[in-house]
Amino acid sequence: MTELPQRVSLREVGPRDGLQNEDAVPTAEKVALIEALGRTGLRRIEAVSFVHPRAVPQMADAEEVWAAVTRAPGVRYSALVPNVRGARRAVDSGVGEIEVVVSASESHSRANVNRSTEESLAEALRVVELAHASGATCQLIVSTAWGCPYEGDVPLDRVLGIADRAVDAGVDSLSFGDTTGMATPSRVTRLVGETRERHPDAPLNLHFHDTRGTALANIVVALQLGIADFDASVGGLGGCPYAPGASGNVATEDVVHMLDDMGVDTGVDLDALLDVAARAQELVGRPLPSHVLRAGPRSRTVGPLPADGA
Amino acid sequence: MTELPQRVSLREVGPRDGLQNEDAVPTAEKVALIEALGRTGLRRIEAVSFVHPRAVPQMADAEEVWAAVTRAPGVRYSALVPNVRGARRAVDSGVGEIEVVVSASESHSRANVNRSTEESLAEALRVVELAHASGATCQLIVSTAWGCPYEGDVPLDRVLGIADRAVDAGVDSLSFGDTTGMATPSRVTRLVGETRERHPDAPLNLHFHDTRGTALANIVVALQLGIADFDASVGGLGGCPYAPGASGNVATEDVVHMLDDMGVDTGVDLDALLDVAARAQELVGRPLPSHVLRAGPRSRTVGPLPADGA
Repeated sequence: MTELPQRVSLREVGPRDGLQNEDAVPTAEKVALIEALGRTGLRRIEAVSFVHPRAVPQMADAEEVWAAVTRAPGVRYSALVPNVRGARRAVDSGVGEIEVVVSASESHSRANVNRSTEESLAEALRVVELAHASGATCQLIVSTAWGCPYEGDVPLDRVLGIADRAVDAGVDSLSFGDTTGMATPSRVTRLVGETRERHPDAPLNLHFHDTRGTALANIVVALQLGIADFDASVGGLGGCPYAPGASGNVATEDVVHMLDDMGVDTGVDLDALLDVAARAQELVGRPLPSHVLRAGPRSRTVGPLPADGA
Repeated sequence: MTELPQRVSLREVGPRDGLQNEDAVPTAEKVALIEALGRTGLRRIEAVSFVHPRAVPQMADAEEVWAAVTRAPGVRYSALVPNVRGARRAVDSGVGEIEVVVSASESHSRANVNRSTEESLAEALRVVELAHASGATCQLIVSTAWGCPYEGDVPLDRVLGIADRAVDAGVDSLSFGDTTGMATPSRVTRLVGETRERHPDAPLNLHFHDTRGTALANIVVALQLGIADFDASVGGLGGCPYAPGASGNVATEDVVHMLDDMGVDTGVDLDALLDVAARAQELVGRPLPSHVLRAGPRSRTVGPLPADGA
């Protein structure tokens, strides 16, 4: 197999992307979840989203959560914002690392933020400016980068065009989101390859859903291309509230479990993470889609065979 | 991405590996399932297992099923046997393509067939002989090739040692089974690489479970190594009755869906296969773990956005 990065940086998105799609969770529970995640060795945590409380009531306490979390040393905490207003709230809260989303699909953009892709991108670039003026970094996330539940395939050029303009505007990094699990290894290879060719120096993060079973396959080919920044969600919490059938953020423990066995360092203590996943499952009160939470890691045997061989 | 095989041959194991782990299904239903699968474009179908009816009552009607199935042109039908007695039943039924299993793990072998790996291998080599004497081909399947639920890691040398002796004995092909979903891409690369180095001419089939989410990732790296023969189970039916937690044969439609999008020809009509998967789900009366059966293929959009953007 092609040489892989020795070390990857996982961004845990469960507290934001996950809880945003669940019944509202008390502030203290969110804080406790983020703090527990911070103790697992994860390198990045997307903690909150500064969205309008009418749009996403689950995130109405973003300021409180952000202020209350006891930071773990060496962990980077970030916040998602949908627009300039959210970015102001984020910088006013002292967020140093901001993400802003633009959907590459016109229909998805309309459904999600009631704006065209072009309007949404213009707003995102204003967010980049505001973030920089406040000393924060800003990542532009292109959602529906590998397909849209309304339109199907999203032309590569639309995604690349957004990336081009974001890089020109001085964005600190890019992320591509497989919002409804439509990416496959060959599509990942194409989009990452083209992006790398145009913007070899732009840090690139990838966000996969396991809706159609391809998340870990996509991560493996991305690793082969040298990508070392990935999103994942503890227990597989979350999805996209506006995208029908969009269950299935890849579970952080599924990613860590595979990478551990492949000798790729994630920094994460898998057992500690599985404890947090079990707690997240209790929090939402239903079985989460994580494979390794259900089956246990490959290293956890059922013990020796009973003497009668039964 | 590395050049991939243009065409793969999937062996559908649902009627055998799947139904063997379910409440007994009427003979006519089995026949109908196998015939429906034969019409989807699948290239190989493992139709039955000639095991002792006391051990696996679900397969007690193997002779009847084998005789009753109307063959589809161009499809290869095979049968699994556990021992010489089963092989005799198979050749007496006119089976031309036989598979015999040896577990690389001592504990799993004991639990599964109450024999040591060595005893089981000796029996398997007698099956190869019998098959050849009857004009049939014989594939040796090494189960627990990437790990055992009782013992954990299975030393590579144990697996390779079995493969060596099988090839020396003139077996027609090898298959490695990830009986409880413990394979990861780097382990696949190692075992396939070593096997290829020792036995460059031995046809090699791989059988993955998605227990820990890695099945499609494993298939992708195997494709990159030039492997073009894989098992899969319609709807994700089945597992291994003797291996605790061994849910999760990779679903045939998940494999076909990914390979279709990657331009790798499986010969399978995905829509037809999804119809059969839905039927298999009805047959067993519970939701099957297939991703694409649940979420629909990536090409199936939810249609245009409602005019109000909601």
